[in-house]
Amino acid sequence: MRLNEATIAISGLGLMGGSLGMALRGKCRQVVGVARRAEVREQAQRLGATDIATCDLKEAAAYADIVVLATPVRHIIESISVAAETMRTGTLLIDVGSTKRQIVGAMNLLPEQLLAVGGHPMCGKETGGIEGADSELFSGARFVLTPTLRTTEEALRVASELAEAVGARPLVLDAERHDRAVAMVSHLPYLLSASLIRTEEKASAQDEVASLLAAGGFRDTTRLAVSQVDMMLDILMTNRDAVEAALDTLEQQLASVKEILAQPDALRSWMVQAQSRKMELFN
Amino acid sequence: MRLNEATIAISGLGLMGGSLGMALRGKCRQVVGVARRAEVREQAQRLGATDIATCDLKEAAAYADIVVLATPVRHIIESISVAAETMRTGTLLIDVGSTKRQIVGAMNLLPEQLLAVGGHPMCGKETGGIEGADSELFSGARFVLTPTLRTTEEALRVASELAEAVGARPLVLDAERHDRAVAMVSHLPYLLSASLIRTEEKASAQDEVASLLAAGGFRDTTRLAVSQVDMMLDILMTNRDAVEAALDTLEQQLASVKEILAQPDALRSWMVQAQSRKMELFN
Repeated sequence: MRLNEATIAISGLGLMGGSLGMALRGKCRQVVGVARRAEVREQAQRLGATDIATCDLKEAAAYADIVVLATPVRHIIESISVAAETMRTGTLLIDVGSTKRQIVGAMNLLPEQLLAVGGHPMCGKETGGIEGADSELFSGARFVLTPTLRTTEEALRVASELAEAVGARPLVLDAERHDRAVAMVSHLPYLLSASLIRTEEKASAQDEVASLLAAGGFRDTTRLAVSQVDMMLDILMTNRDAVEAALDTLEQQLASVKEILAQPDALRSWMVQAQSRKMELFN
Repeated sequence: MRLNEATIAISGLGLMGGSLGMALRGKCRQVVGVARRAEVREQAQRLGATDIATCDLKEAAAYADIVVLATPVRHIIESISVAAETMRTGTLLIDVGSTKRQIVGAMNLLPEQLLAVGGHPMCGKETGGIEGADSELFSGARFVLTPTLRTTEEALRVASELAEAVGARPLVLDAERHDRAVAMVSHLPYLLSASLIRTEEKASAQDEVASLLAAGGFRDTTRLAVSQVDMMLDILMTNRDAVEAALDTLEQQLASVKEILAQPDALRSWMVQAQSRKMELFN
């Protein structure tokens, strides 16, 4: 299969699906958008994210060469078998969900004549929706590809080509390692942001001056607290053990910093180490 | 005392002191910069942050009408009595340190003929230094003013005028309330950012893929981890009880979210509440 000859169906025209459509149009034969709500389909058409659009995943999957699932994770899991009902032999199924073990588990159960690769582009914005779609969203981002029992060499090649076509850098990674890593660098930061907001809310209930003094540092540390609830809830529900483990590690870290709060030398080295690690990661 | 006739000495020509100098020049008679290192004084002159500069606080304080202390908190505390040695009757001492109780405590011990008001402009950048100085840094920011035993009505009026002259909005607040509030909205976010980085570092030591997947959300949530260590260490050391209390509240919040991780409905309402509080604070 060659990408530039492929008809690509994208189920879910939010930030991810819409941006993917924009980035893929012109690089494939046709982008077919799938969305339940008529106004979303119309907006996707207006924004140039789709060539045509339908509300029927089975219909779109029937004539697509590649089907991309871009809805919240638990909806992706349900859609896998729905799309499979009409997908033809050799059609490739990809998703862009933020957790991979349960999705890969569902893909493993697909009929043997279908191809499937899990996917997760490491980009996004905290606010979703087609109105934020951007053809450059994937530019330079890692695009994790997780093999399934339905992943052939050809399937992985096409999935990589798709990732590169939207400007991303493919990274093949098994679902287990992926989920553990994103629990740490993505789901834990969300929970911390939200917990910090809830903590501040409690403090402000006693003395509202706290909220008057919240400035740029507080704003940025809590940026992720406005993440889309539906999307994030699905993520947490499908990665619970890894999220719990990440929370445990963080709680140990907080406990140990609390212990050294009265020890300037120990506290200073802890702070210096955090500073240099941060610079190392994002120079 | 009228601001436009005042000679203002600023001790410490980092981000805060340098920006203050830039914002005050032209609105007062003269800005006298005080910094230990010659290259900092030269850079401040080049950037237009000072009219003249010296390494000697006592010398500058001797002929200033207003002395502003803009070094890290524990250095401010030491400088209060140093400046007082040469300050004339009626000279006003202000500081811009990030914690207020210990500073106000030291100001309370000043001779009765001196005036003193604690100050804390709620703005900044995580990286300091004169090279980041910006005359617009204070624009629109809250500028907390904390009364001391040496704060007269006239002292508070001049301090407010100074805050407004640099574009900030004065807010009179006692030191106790200030310190409790900033522990929550500023010092706790720093400790969380740094703890998250240290937690990720531990995770990456076991599997370095975590750092490969760190994207924008992780980067922003950990922004404060690069805060200047000297400045932040002084802040934490002079606000320990309030920081510990804020950490305790956050730990309770994390424990309660961990308890509901397996309960979608409860988790969803917790998430929705965090989202709406965040929007309420920073629409």
